[in-house]
Amino acid sequence: MLTLYYAPGACSRAAHIALREAGAEFELREVDFASAEQRGDDYRRINPKGRVPTLVTDRGTLTENPAILAWVAQQYPEAGLAPLDDPFEFARLQSFNSYLCATVHVAHAHSRRGERWADDAAAIAEMKRKAPEVVADCFELIENGMFAGPWVMGEDYTVADGYLFTIAQWLPGHRINIARYPKIRDHLNRMLQRPAVKETIMAEGGR
Amino acid sequence: MLTLYYAPGACSRAAHIALREAGAEFELREVDFASAEQRGDDYRRINPKGRVPTLVTDRGTLTENPAILAWVAQQYPEAGLAPLDDPFEFARLQSFNSYLCATVHVAHAHSRRGERWADDAAAIAEMKRKAPEVVADCFELIENGMFAGPWVMGEDYTVADGYLFTIAQWLPGHRINIARYPKIRDHLNRMLQRPAVKETIMAEGGR
Repeated sequence: MLTLYYAPGACSRAAHIALREAGAEFELREVDFASAEQRGDDYRRINPKGRVPTLVTDRGTLTENPAILAWVAQQYPEAGLAPLDDPFEFARLQSFNSYLCATVHVAHAHSRRGERWADDAAAIAEMKRKAPEVVADCFELIENGMFAGPWVMGEDYTVADGYLFTIAQWLPGHRINIARYPKIRDHLNRMLQRPAVKETIMAEGGR
Repeated sequence: MLTLYYAPGACSRAAHIALREAGAEFELREVDFASAEQRGDDYRRINPKGRVPTLVTDRGTLTENPAILAWVAQQYPEAGLAPLDDPFEFARLQSFNSYLCATVHVAHAHSRRGERWADDAAAIAEMKRKAPEVVADCFELIENGMFAGPWVMGEDYTVADGYLFTIAQWLPGHRINIARYPKIRDHLNRMLQRPAVKETIMAEGGR
């Protein structure tokens, strides 16, 4: 049995969507960010990083979206969620997920988690101020240089689609109108029509 | 033929080591960080992100260390650089690489590339001040919670070893004594005895 630790609307949504797309059986456990449960001792015993997603499997615990997403795709090959038989295409997929994880999510985190990288209140405020600009630059690059269409990688839906969708849903929080990125806007609408995506949103509380 | 764009001692060293460990034939092209070549138009035509590593292959261009490292392991399976036949172990490897890429490297980048996330000079100085503390926390977690030994994943050398080695070499720049982390210190010494690692260092100018 699998257990996914998640927070509603957080980056764990990418793993959540992938599990539903794969038809996996899993249990959901919400981590309460409002009370900083992710930084508490109980949760840190499960994931010492104090972050989501955490996926507990019969073999052990997995963290980090790019790793969990590739695992889901490999573990449920019949769902066709990654180009598993072509190392180059698989690497392109991983490169996209890595960019979301290490650059786009990190850019976003400077608006809400600045205390990770500074103690001074003015410095944290300055990161928060600049974050929308940095996030917008990332989406510009995705829109014009990385997104193949109709799905992230081209004709085939992959685990990268749920990940992009998850992060694109954060744009309004930065007061960035998704209409600036027509391909990503259309992708978001396309995603909202998938049963697994609708189920994910409902299971996370409707948003 | 493969071409690796790198900068001496930068994170591209992880890809460089992996290619040598795999016995791959490749060409090296240095990107001159001193003149900010990575942000120039010529280089951005190769990699619009303006970063290293970039690996040009016959099929196209790959960026992002976790993607390149997994590709090298899959493309040269006889080198045994990743647990390719076990999705769970492969995911653990990917999780480690993802942590290095999205958390440890990012923590390091705040000491030298603060302008990515702030314009204000005082904010950039504050990130620089805090960076060693954040980097040290990451290495604490690796030392005590993630490193299996004698190699990152346990008995078998993998692409994660070259990546950890690359980032551990940045510790002196943060005035962090690697002796604080005995397992990582021993790992660094073990790495320095590998022919591929010695060749990489020499090819990058001796440091």
